[in-house]
Amino acid sequence: MKEFLGKDFLLNTETAKKLYHNYAVKMPIIDYHCHLQPREIYENKKFRNLTEVWLGAGDRYGDHYKWRILRARGYGEDYISGAADDRERFDKFVETLPWTAGNPLYHWSHLELRRYFGIEEIICPANADVIWEKANEKLKTLTAREMMTMFDVKTVCTTDDPTDSLEWHLKMKEDSTLKVVVRPAFRPDKAINAELGWFTDWIGKLSAVVGYEIKTLDSLLKALEERIRFFDSVGCKLSDHALDTVCYAEATEDEVAAIFAKALEKKPLTPEELDKYKGWILVFLGKQYAKYDWVQQYHIGALRNNSGRMLKEIGADTGFDGIGDACVAQKLSALLDKLDSTDELPKTVLYNLNPGDNMTLAVLAGCFQGNSKGIKGKIQFGAAWWFLDQKDGMEKQLEALSQVGLLSQFIGMLTDSRSFLSYPRHEYFRRILCNKLGDLVENGEYPDDVEFLGKIVENICYGNAKAYFGF
Amino acid sequence: MKEFLGKDFLLNTETAKKLYHNYAVKMPIIDYHCHLQPREIYENKKFRNLTEVWLGAGDRYGDHYKWRILRARGYGEDYISGAADDRERFDKFVETLPWTAGNPLYHWSHLELRRYFGIEEIICPANADVIWEKANEKLKTLTAREMMTMFDVKTVCTTDDPTDSLEWHLKMKEDSTLKVVVRPAFRPDKAINAELGWFTDWIGKLSAVVGYEIKTLDSLLKALEERIRFFDSVGCKLSDHALDTVCYAEATEDEVAAIFAKALEKKPLTPEELDKYKGWILVFLGKQYAKYDWVQQYHIGALRNNSGRMLKEIGADTGFDGIGDACVAQKLSALLDKLDSTDELPKTVLYNLNPGDNMTLAVLAGCFQGNSKGIKGKIQFGAAWWFLDQKDGMEKQLEALSQVGLLSQFIGMLTDSRSFLSYPRHEYFRRILCNKLGDLVENGEYPDDVEFLGKIVENICYGNAKAYFGF
Amino acid sequence: MKEFLGKDFLLNTETAKKLYHNYAVKMPIIDYHCHLQPREIYENKKFRNLTEVWLGAGDRYGDHYKWRILRARGYGEDYISGAADDRERFDKFVETLPWTAGNPLYHWSHLELRRYFGIEEIICPANADVIWEKANEKLKTLTAREMMTMFDVKTVCTTDDPTDSLEWHLKMKEDSTLKVVVRPAFRPDKAINAELGWFTDWIGKLSAVVGYEIKTLDSLLKALEERIRFFDSVGCKLSDHALDTVCYAEATEDEVAAIFAKALEKKPLTPEELDKYKGWILVFLGKQYAKYDWVQQYHIGALRNNSGRMLKEIGADTGFDGIGDACVAQKLSALLDKLDSTDELPKTVLYNLNPGDNMTLAVLAGCFQGNSKGIKGKIQFGAAWWFLDQKDGMEKQLEALSQVGLLSQFIGMLTDSRSFLSYPRHEYFRRILCNKLGDLVENGEYPDDVEFLGKIVENICYGNAKAYFGF
Repeated sequence: MKEFLGKDFLLNTETAKKLYHNYAVKMPIIDYHCHLQPREIYENKKFRNLTEVWLGAGDRYGDHYKWRILRARGYGEDYISGAADDRERFDKFVETLPWTAGNPLYHWSHLELRRYFGIEEIICPANADVIWEKANEKLKTLTAREMMTMFDVKTVCTTDDPTDSLEWHLKMKEDSTLKVVVRPAFRPDKAINAELGWFTDWIGKLSAVVGYEIKTLDSLLKALEERIRFFDSVGCKLSDHALDTVCYAEATEDEVAAIFAKALEKKPLTPEELDKYKGWILVFLGKQYAKYDWVQQYHIGALRNNSGRMLKEIGADTGFDGIGDACVAQKLSALLDKLDSTDELPKTVLYNLNPGDNMTLAVLAGCFQGNSKGIKGKIQFGAAWWFLDQKDGMEKQLEALSQVGLLSQFIGMLTDSRSFLSYPRHEYFRRILCNKLGDLVENGEYPDDVEFLGKIVENICYGNAKAYFGF
Repeated sequence: MKEFLGKDFLLNTETAKKLYHNYAVKMPIIDYHCHLQPREIYENKKFRNLTEVWLGAGDRYGDHYKWRILRARGYGEDYISGAADDRERFDKFVETLPWTAGNPLYHWSHLELRRYFGIEEIICPANADVIWEKANEKLKTLTAREMMTMFDVKTVCTTDDPTDSLEWHLKMKEDSTLKVVVRPAFRPDKAINAELGWFTDWIGKLSAVVGYEIKTLDSLLKALEERIRFFDSVGCKLSDHALDTVCYAEATEDEVAAIFAKALEKKPLTPEELDKYKGWILVFLGKQYAKYDWVQQYHIGALRNNSGRMLKEIGADTGFDGIGDACVAQKLSALLDKLDSTDELPKTVLYNLNPGDNMTLAVLAGCFQGNSKGIKGKIQFGAAWWFLDQKDGMEKQLEALSQVGLLSQFIGMLTDSRSFLSYPRHEYFRRILCNKLGDLVENGEYPDDVEFLGKIVENICYGNAKAYFGF
Repeated sequence: MKEFLGKDFLLNTETAKKLYHNYAVKMPIIDYHCHLQPREIYENKKFRNLTEVWLGAGDRYGDHYKWRILRARGYGEDYISGAADDRERFDKFVETLPWTAGNPLYHWSHLELRRYFGIEEIICPANADVIWEKANEKLKTLTAREMMTMFDVKTVCTTDDPTDSLEWHLKMKEDSTLKVVVRPAFRPDKAINAELGWFTDWIGKLSAVVGYEIKTLDSLLKALEERIRFFDSVGCKLSDHALDTVCYAEATEDEVAAIFAKALEKKPLTPEELDKYKGWILVFLGKQYAKYDWVQQYHIGALRNNSGRMLKEIGADTGFDGIGDACVAQKLSALLDKLDSTDELPKTVLYNLNPGDNMTLAVLAGCFQGNSKGIKGKIQFGAAWWFLDQKDGMEKQLEALSQVGLLSQFIGMLTDSRSFLSYPRHEYFRRILCNKLGDLVENGEYPDDVEFLGKIVENICYGNAKAYFGF
């Protein structure tokens, strides 16, 4: 029996242990996709207590993984997103945690306490007081930046709207005390989701930012191009797209201009029109990214805001999202092919939320690898994402990638997190990665060449991302 | 090497063994969803021989799992559903069984002989005579009720049509010699599947039962409401829906009334009309269930009666059903959301037949857990069902549930069976469950706290279902 | 730690080792589906060097598995499908291979060198020279036929267009020096895919072959029937269909005749028309196959030619295909049901490329097993195919098949390969198969009856295919 969360947690073979302790653990972190708030990094946020930083609340995003589990345990919203006292909310979570056997929250929560706070106690009601006190004591000095430094985080990419002024990013560029490189990432979902109620408002906001009215497709494209240039000047190296469903259909520029005009008049668009409009914009953006040598990320397959009632009550991104099961292969292929047809397909990371799409995306990525620039792994099958960001999900992502692609060129892990406490997920991933490679050796599926495999580990933990993104 | 079907069958760690032998094995059974015939329980059915109870035949449902395998082995229908002599049919099955290595039938069949009959022989032609004789001797005294008592079955829920008089259930309520609580369950599929040939006949039957003609939507809803009240008065606590595909679309009452009128005239309905009609009725029923504090079960994803020829020859439910692959997420989400929007979503169990839907449903369940009544695990990701009710299927269901939900609040196993010989499937499930929890400890993924995990095991085996259904 | 690719590679239990070394390894090979070129077998092809036979090039099909990996490694097309020097191309591949840890190519490539050439060196740049020299020396005598003899290949079925003259097959029938039985297989995709640009050209070619103009559906059916009769006379026992998506809709003969006429006029067909036309032709062909007692193979779910640019540059089947995710269950069921309804469903093998369809197809196969001829496993859930033809993919195929069907009646492995070097994939499969059966015994899920399991192994490796195809 292995010690709970011990030194060799998730490492089942001697080779796995060597790979983790001699290679993986030494590598810095590049967190190339997350949802940290730039302002909190710049201002070096301090937290009032463990509840704020661990569970989140009121004025800042909560940890929706933890919130979902509290709801499943039968607690009312007061103790989750609501107004209950911080200590009460903490206590409910501590009561819940022992019942999460088999859920990654059990590991994450313990790793968070151990790695940031040095708290080794098992999380359970009997230890609630001691955990509360120790953590809050530590939080007197443990700031946001300190949390990043502890984990040797070299680069972090936030997620930013095209209309964002990047005010905090600009300030951070001037701040020589900041040890981590913080880069913006370009997320133009609101330019694409023309069916949503806030589309025209957002176009108005973009107009204000660029300083001219956007009334035609031409002016929209011009504005997007300008914002890309601006983001690039602030150090942006990648974009991000939430393609909940993949929309694409061949269209002419005239058709798309007409659809955009219709959307500006707040007329409802047909599915065919959305395919054409969204596809067109994605192709336009992809070509821009290629020009700037950015990486584009496609996050595919979320089914968001399932509870309309809770969306109204507490807003989006609060734990009511799910996994979609629409078909994706054909339209995604057509979209990538369109960009590839003129050799303007940028480096691309494909993430899927439905694990049933693992092999489809891993194989599709392999159809667009060819390039004349010698880019290794140009199209990446992205790390296990969101609900799949757990042991089983990661193992399956690694398995799919390695069986039909080149695991050795994988750009590895990211947190995708709103919290400064999520860096242990890199540790979690690295252990699972080393265990997988260790199994290959143990089972006679790869020679016992720890040195070479160590190089692969170092690359996946750090080197590949550094080279791929050009950090 | 482990002994075949030995004491520690499916239990691979010491912790797993402790959890099974010290906790799981001691818990009674609640079989909250099955297809036993109430009359056979009331009349305490005796069986003429092993063939009748084991393989089924003629006048009663057969074991379609066994029938499918006999067909795959190349036997003609005579030896399966047909007129061949009971001993001949038994012999064909015994010949087939050694060739089912890797199939759950191999385990189930042996467990059935061991646990009910004390027959330890391996099932193979050389042992056919001794098995036949021992089993038939035992069947002289081993009645239906005795079979239930042997397994400490506390509660059984059958599956009943809304038009059913519940005659046998009413008689059982009066029968003080009956040790098991037998409850009806409400399965109104025939009120919903307006596209099927027998729809209007069934409406006629319902009219006869409620005593007034059902010519409008209003009268249909009134009739359904009355039947729910009647079922509730007989002890019903749950409903069941076969949503082979999930149908839902927003609709007005007038639209649905018109669609119902059209269906009564036997005019074909469009897919859109079916979405509206079925969705409306499901929402109506869901609200009723919420009012009565029932649980609703959605069984999603069967593709039935694939061989039209065999449907004509020997009828439905005889081993010609399959697994569908239609998209389910969006419409299912919309249906649950509609009920949730007015806070009238009842406790719900979501079962999927396509294993590709595991994560989709497990995560979707987590989007509707919130409730003001403190119900733990209000929306359940249901046990591995039908073709998934086997080791691999169960392991994957438990894995999905635990990675994105609360395994500890799972209401556990049911047989879904037409046979009195199916209770060992609870044992099978419990072993797999304990093995999973044992692995967590063994791998250092959970502390070595057998007492607490034992409580989780007891809850999943019995306590959770008891509390959830209110038995 | 196990030796890399050692004697007990992939065999984890004593039972697995016994099953492999005492049973599996002794069985001959039936390669019932491949893409070898009959001419190369007849002419007993010699290869100029390792690059030609291992990686392929210019005038003959390349190994698209290897090509995809070279692209992912960032090499330009010159070194892959292009004009680079053979030794240079070899060197690039050798450089790449150590980076394929976890990919089946790593095993296949080493097995190819070991089993055909006796080269035990690890493939890496340091060993490039010695491998190049040893292999090329060996290739002076190691011809195509010799490669087949080395592996005890008894029967090979190629894949042939209905318009093919079968010239080389006819010559091989006369060639008494040929030790392997080479049979054609009938692949009439071009008669079915009426939406493709080359449809009418192909109809013209078929006209030329049969000697009369095909202007009506009647004449098309007559021509297909004649070609089937001709193929049968040359020893054909099976057909093959690439059903990238499954098309089927009920139609009348008049409707289909009109659609065919429209296609001949090069008018675009609607999806509904394609469903009707393709479904009709598939049913017609299925009935023919039943008449000739052929086996039909359905390969379902490829998404081909994703990069239009590369299709134009270097043609089809060069490594740009992917996995589709369209729904298949309902139409496939309807198609099989149509044939079954008149008892004219031939023996059928269902292969899926999307692993998400494993259970759907494995279960659907079980719905059509019944037959009056005593055929065992009439409908087969086919071996893991293409991107799934690797350890994880095979294990999952075996798991699905065994959990819901009869693994013991599985017709086993095929190469589906364009290369003479692919026979070690049978070894790979056999090891995985024996390991699975060994696990059953080891885990107490099957009695320790190696003799009986050995019989199952022999059947899956050889006996079942021999009986099923009537070789």
